[in-house]
Amino acid sequence: MKRIESSQNAQVKHWKRLITVRKERDKSGEFLVEGFHLVEEALRKQESVLALIVREGMTIPKNWNVEEIEIIEVTMDIAKEMAETEHSQGIYAHCSQSTTTKEQQQSWEKLLFIDAVQDPGNVGTMIRTADAAGLDAVILGKGSADAFNPKTVRSGQGSHFHIPIVKGDLSDWVQACKYKDIPVYGTSLDDSVVYNHIEPQPQFALIMGNEGSGLSQQLLQQTDMNLKIPLVGQAESLNVAVATGILLYTLIPIQVES
Amino acid sequence: MKRIESSQNAQVKHWKRLITVRKERDKSGEFLVEGFHLVEEALRKQESVLALIVREGMTIPKNWNVEEIEIIEVTMDIAKEMAETEHSQGIYAHCSQSTTTKEQQQSWEKLLFIDAVQDPGNVGTMIRTADAAGLDAVILGKGSADAFNPKTVRSGQGSHFHIPIVKGDLSDWVQACKYKDIPVYGTSLDDSVVYNHIEPQPQFALIMGNEGSGLSQQLLQQTDMNLKIPLVGQAESLNVAVATGILLYTLIPIQVES
Repeated sequence: MKRIESSQNAQVKHWKRLITVRKERDKSGEFLVEGFHLVEEALRKQESVLALIVREGMTIPKNWNVEEIEIIEVTMDIAKEMAETEHSQGIYAHCSQSTTTKEQQQSWEKLLFIDAVQDPGNVGTMIRTADAAGLDAVILGKGSADAFNPKTVRSGQGSHFHIPIVKGDLSDWVQACKYKDIPVYGTSLDDSVVYNHIEPQPQFALIMGNEGSGLSQQLLQQTDMNLKIPLVGQAESLNVAVATGILLYTLIPIQVES
Repeated sequence: MKRIESSQNAQVKHWKRLITVRKERDKSGEFLVEGFHLVEEALRKQESVLALIVREGMTIPKNWNVEEIEIIEVTMDIAKEMAETEHSQGIYAHCSQSTTTKEQQQSWEKLLFIDAVQDPGNVGTMIRTADAAGLDAVILGKGSADAFNPKTVRSGQGSHFHIPIVKGDLSDWVQACKYKDIPVYGTSLDDSVVYNHIEPQPQFALIMGNEGSGLSQQLLQQTDMNLKIPLVGQAESLNVAVATGILLYTLIPIQVES
């Protein structure tokens, strides 16, 4: 097993920058996950794991499939510098962000578009919800929190390894949906249909907007239909991830069980 | 306007303990909210505001109704000590937790029961969602994060001033519902009904459980019916606040608009 003892080591510096600097993640197409649960999820998608990083003295669970994975041991001090939280478990996976081909993208029929959602926890929970609802992919537009920010990844609870996440221009994606006759739903309180008036759809794209200002006007004008969730009490709005859950679980067809 | 300059002042000490110490909140039945949005929500429910606390030099918005409210100015240093975040707005409301009578509690027909949900952000988002869905109250069982923790209050986005929040024994509350023929729904993957197979209900109680372990067995055995949200993709679970939104917006009757 390779061992690194200096926090000046170039690899250690790169890992630390992957945690704190978005540009480092964007440029390299890599990210870091921390803790047993997320590392285990990463290992289920072996091709995304570049290396496993363990604090000295840490034992890797015997049931983990790490035969083909490079394992790097680091000192207590380095592990501490890399820790995001006080209760760090001292285990990390250095991962590559998933990529998809144009052909794969062409086949997608159920999509979540995220327009300028700023809180990383919200973006992560939305990715987790899209995964739970069986969507084909999540498309992140401009102005959204980074999908590979450590907080986003933590809220994603492993879904980053289950569902493709693509950065892109949402207007272009809406046009692509129109071309393929996939209905595009926005969310708005004006000129909109109450969510439970629509039927589940075999194909759709749902656009969710910024926590404060909602969907951009430009996108609202391109949608086929806008949905609203009535606020019965005095709350001014729902949390955007909660609203995503309500709308996705209205749009997806749920199989009746035997 | 009263002005406090010493951080050793007893009132300042009490405020700081209200932020950090759950016992102080429980014992006094008070809590503190920070920032323009939450203070404005507090002022809409005047009877809950004990005092407004402002950093020196801060101007109170002219449209705020503060005629009958005690306003206390504090120094920059004290304001900084009280700040929860780096971007503190230097404005606070010292509030009393709402109380309800037995008679009021008897009249409630739509309830959310929270069983040992541990993350303050989740509890706050659940309170906000219950408010949005027009529920009558939220009942917090043992082992849940404190409803008046600053993080919970922040995620609640003002809903703490819109909907009664009561701490109590959930078994007792379930029994009270049974006595009044209010159906009680649990959440479970076993022995449960898919959420979209049920009709909206004029009266109900929904119990949501711990993030990791779900509802306690004891409560599960007391419910009238348990609901499940199918996981179509690879996610192991939904965020508990997202699941709360999906289930509440299934259970509440939504008026058809003209």
